[in-house]
Amino acid sequence: MPDNRRFTLVRRPDGTPAAEDFHLAMQPTPALAPGEVLVRNVYASLDPAIRGWLDDAPSYMPPVALGAPVRATTVGTVAQSANPDFAPGDWVLGLNAIEEYSVAVPGGFTQKIDPAAVPSVTNYLSIFGAVGLTAYFGLLEVGKPKPGDTVLVTGAAGAVGSLVGQIAKLQGCRVIGIAGGPAKCARLVERYGFDAAIDYRGLDEAALVAAIRAATPDGLDVIFENVGGIILDAALMNLADGARVALCGLISEYNAPAPVGVRNLWQLIVHSASINGLLVRDFIPRFGEGAAAMGGWLAAGKLVFDEDIVTGIDNAFPAFMKLFSGGNDGKLILKL
Amino acid sequence: MPDNRRFTLVRRPDGTPAAEDFHLAMQPTPALAPGEVLVRNVYASLDPAIRGWLDDAPSYMPPVALGAPVRATTVGTVAQSANPDFAPGDWVLGLNAIEEYSVAVPGGFTQKIDPAAVPSVTNYLSIFGAVGLTAYFGLLEVGKPKPGDTVLVTGAAGAVGSLVGQIAKLQGCRVIGIAGGPAKCARLVERYGFDAAIDYRGLDEAALVAAIRAATPDGLDVIFENVGGIILDAALMNLADGARVALCGLISEYNAPAPVGVRNLWQLIVHSASINGLLVRDFIPRFGEGAAAMGGWLAAGKLVFDEDIVTGIDNAFPAFMKLFSGGNDGKLILKL
Repeated sequence: MPDNRRFTLVRRPDGTPAAEDFHLAMQPTPALAPGEVLVRNVYASLDPAIRGWLDDAPSYMPPVALGAPVRATTVGTVAQSANPDFAPGDWVLGLNAIEEYSVAVPGGFTQKIDPAAVPSVTNYLSIFGAVGLTAYFGLLEVGKPKPGDTVLVTGAAGAVGSLVGQIAKLQGCRVIGIAGGPAKCARLVERYGFDAAIDYRGLDEAALVAAIRAATPDGLDVIFENVGGIILDAALMNLADGARVALCGLISEYNAPAPVGVRNLWQLIVHSASINGLLVRDFIPRFGEGAAAMGGWLAAGKLVFDEDIVTGIDNAFPAFMKLFSGGNDGKLILKL
Repeated sequence: MPDNRRFTLVRRPDGTPAAEDFHLAMQPTPALAPGEVLVRNVYASLDPAIRGWLDDAPSYMPPVALGAPVRATTVGTVAQSANPDFAPGDWVLGLNAIEEYSVAVPGGFTQKIDPAAVPSVTNYLSIFGAVGLTAYFGLLEVGKPKPGDTVLVTGAAGAVGSLVGQIAKLQGCRVIGIAGGPAKCARLVERYGFDAAIDYRGLDEAALVAAIRAATPDGLDVIFENVGGIILDAALMNLADGARVALCGLISEYNAPAPVGVRNLWQLIVHSASINGLLVRDFIPRFGEGAAAMGGWLAAGKLVFDEDIVTGIDNAFPAFMKLFSGGNDGKLILKL
């Protein structure tokens, strides 16, 4: 068995993760049990959800154990197989870890993929992966936009947000995005086709409320929420009656030792509105349908997307931290 | 026209309302225009929603103007009529104000009522009024409980909460209530038939989380939320997958100059759960159906309810403040 470099968690982050919370360990790979395969991970998906898995808090999956490699979705090739259905060289997608080699049990989320079916095998971590399917099912099934609706996307320049905005435009909606900085805001309008963009930097809550109102005088029918904090509070002050908030993430809170929280929930009562938590796992049985729809739009030139690929497992920590500084342009992926 | 004592708003409350924010004014009643009626208000409903109407903030109806009487639902008798369908002596229900006489335009929420159809005419402000219909439609249409579900009611000893708990039991649910103090908790179990009660007094958020968990180890399927703040945050840490929060009120926040807010919204993502704002106005076309169902349960001895009637318009301020101190037992009504 080859040696295995692994990006391990050695201390739970207290607020913002520090380099010392992690350690690049060299460990041997274990022998395979019958049915298992050894995957040489080639690309790992760096997602905001990983931050939640580092905390010892009740969640939809157990926390990453201290000493264990940090959990991540990867694509890679089979290096060794003790499973008759998998041969060395097969490409697989799975929920593994940021490490060179993972032992995987096929089934469930771990499956073979065809790199020839997509422009780049990394697309299985972006537009055809959890990111793309979160945008697709989150907007359409949780946000439920109707033609003519006004849709606000927060974290709009991110991997999920940029797809959500484009899918909302394809539904005949007016789409506003919130992002950090003039370059990202220009990209929302010019590259992703948003109708308008709001730069949140330097704006307090009252100024955010006013900026959203100016861009959407009839109120918001759908909010696709990635950020939380005062950005969500400001959006809540601009609801149309019957508005739906698809709650995908709260990235502004993940590293906060004392979360700001949300103080304008009363607006849900005023407008008979709702906030609905969104977990892409709920749509696993329909992933094929979503990927087919995204593939069709892509082939027709109706969707664009970006990937930001960082190379080297020794860059895992600074690459991960780009998610929180807003430093990435497009889906953040680590090449191992 | 008779003189008219009116409980007027003279200053917008800054946080907790003060006696000086109001003034008992003596003003003449205006002459009636064709179609109008003059109502001698006999009972006024004192509701937490009134607190919201005193603020100059965007809401589902305009704020009470400075110098105007405080808006409230009332029942009373027609004193003078310029409307051929209403005769002096007719009983009417309407959204009027805390004042002896209101000029009302029949139609919409203002309607004739039959005092002989109910045990007491005050019931039109409690079980057959907005309170009862909020409990009925809020639980059944927004909370959507299924038999066997676990339902948590906060503010459970209040006018709405005590009915919600009983209706949930009639749906075959296990029902837990949160209330303040041992007397109210005993009443939840002994009088209203809750399965268990939690006294929130003296408990911090962690202790509340633990108390809810101990009472509902499989998690909460439905939360009927009247309170907000750390009580809602503690409930959110105990969600079952797919949980529904029917958001009826946030009374702990209404007088807070700096609201605590809600910091555990991420649990909505973890459990694919939702928070849905509840405004009884959305169910006006179905009020007859709700009142009939409640009347049937009442006649069958399956529901109990309580009214707390305070006498005298000069007691309007201290009576209103009982809503926030938890001093009332049952639906709070002012006899004018």
